[in-house]
Amino acid sequence: MQNSRDAKFKELAAQLGYSFEGEIKIGGNYVSVVRHGAQVFVSGQIPRVGNEVVVVGRAGVEVTLPRAQLAAKVCAMRALALLQQSLGTLEKVSQVLRITVFVQSAQDFTQQSEVADGASEALYAILGEAGSHTRTSVGVYQLPKNAAVELDLIAAVE
Amino acid sequence: MQNSRDAKFKELAAQLGYSFEGEIKIGGNYVSVVRHGAQVFVSGQIPRVGNEVVVVGRAGVEVTLPRAQLAAKVCAMRALALLQQSLGTLEKVSQVLRITVFVQSAQDFTQQSEVADGASEALYAILGEAGSHTRTSVGVYQLPKNAAVELDLIAAVE
Amino acid sequence: MQNSRDAKFKELAAQLGYSFEGEIKIGGNYVSVVRHGAQVFVSGQIPRVGNEVVVVGRAGVEVTLPRAQLAAKVCAMRALALLQQSLGTLEKVSQVLRITVFVQSAQDFTQQSEVADGASEALYAILGEAGSHTRTSVGVYQLPKNAAVELDLIAAVE
Repeated sequence: MQNSRDAKFKELAAQLGYSFEGEIKIGGNYVSVVRHGAQVFVSGQIPRVGNEVVVVGRAGVEVTLPRAQLAAKVCAMRALALLQQSLGTLEKVSQVLRITVFVQSAQDFTQQSEVADGASEALYAILGEAGSHTRTSVGVYQLPKNAAVELDLIAAVE
Repeated sequence: MQNSRDAKFKELAAQLGYSFEGEIKIGGNYVSVVRHGAQVFVSGQIPRVGNEVVVVGRAGVEVTLPRAQLAAKVCAMRALALLQQSLGTLEKVSQVLRITVFVQSAQDFTQQSEVADGASEALYAILGEAGSHTRTSVGVYQLPKNAAVELDLIAAVE
Repeated sequence: MQNSRDAKFKELAAQLGYSFEGEIKIGGNYVSVVRHGAQVFVSGQIPRVGNEVVVVGRAGVEVTLPRAQLAAKVCAMRALALLQQSLGTLEKVSQVLRITVFVQSAQDFTQQSEVADGASEALYAILGEAGSHTRTSVGVYQLPKNAAVELDLIAAVE
């Protein structure tokens, strides 16, 4: 199937129970995607679906590891949805170059890398080898709208 | 007017009441700007003017939202000043690709995106469409010299 | 000497008393290095040598400035080791474009820039002018495995 990545994206969205169709809202005075040559930059994504941030709070306090991983996955799905809208199809992503994953963390929560695995899994599941990426995961004090996770991304495209 | 962006930069600096002429000081053992092909990387900027960091402290505690937005704007002005010095004129900026905005935040302060709007506004006001950018805003625990905001930037240039 | 950077790397590793030979472990579901054209992205590195994170805790509380600087240096050495493994030799690094240094910080610790100098020094010592880089240093609330510092890097390569 020619657009198999787009199909896999739809499938994972359905599994998560979230729709990433329609306009992806952003919170300010900027744009979601900028392309420069063969690189595409995607703005920091929080786990917002429609009008709701689906996982809020601090990992290690009110947010469990599995919920934080879900948040990271939803952030990655939003980034993919933006790439799909921008490029027409995810087939044009040749490589994810970098993701940075910011986790709103409790003082003693040190599993930011495990949280980020939620995002990494989605990228591999949908893009295969092209989803292979470098990653930086850190624990921050607060995130916009009290989101549990924020993720940004740079991808290479055809 | 050929250098209208440079004129707009001067105008906004005057409105803010700050001068960005002369050497832009940095705090350590690195450089402010590196160019690679058509991309220019600008180091993380705090709202320092001359020897003074003009907005210090934590957003949501001693720093109000308007003051934090001012801090973000001054960071963006510094980044633009560095681009201007490096390129000779801001006319050579073809696109701002990414800004990352770190806001020193109170535990319950969640308006990092609103703070970052201060920087985004300056980029649009001076560069117009070329100032359109992707953005990541996060709330961090501390910043160098107790700065309220730090911003870094990647731009595409002619 | 043709591979003088590689020799300098070995020398500094010996001075630090750490070996960066063998597999560089990473903590999750991603890769350490991705190349895109003339740019190489290196994943966020914590000061891990073998199985041990050699500097853990919070700068300004249990981690002194010199220890935090050591942590930053070890992160930079890991990033260089990964570039060396990926490229065959550090001679192929034409320029370090960006490092971002995240410092696990006490509430009132504001010397993130001084901490990052530990990394910058290693880059200059080994790569010379090619080690000249832009830098962003921030103080974060937590890092994976309670590491004191995390550093990521983008480099231009031949």
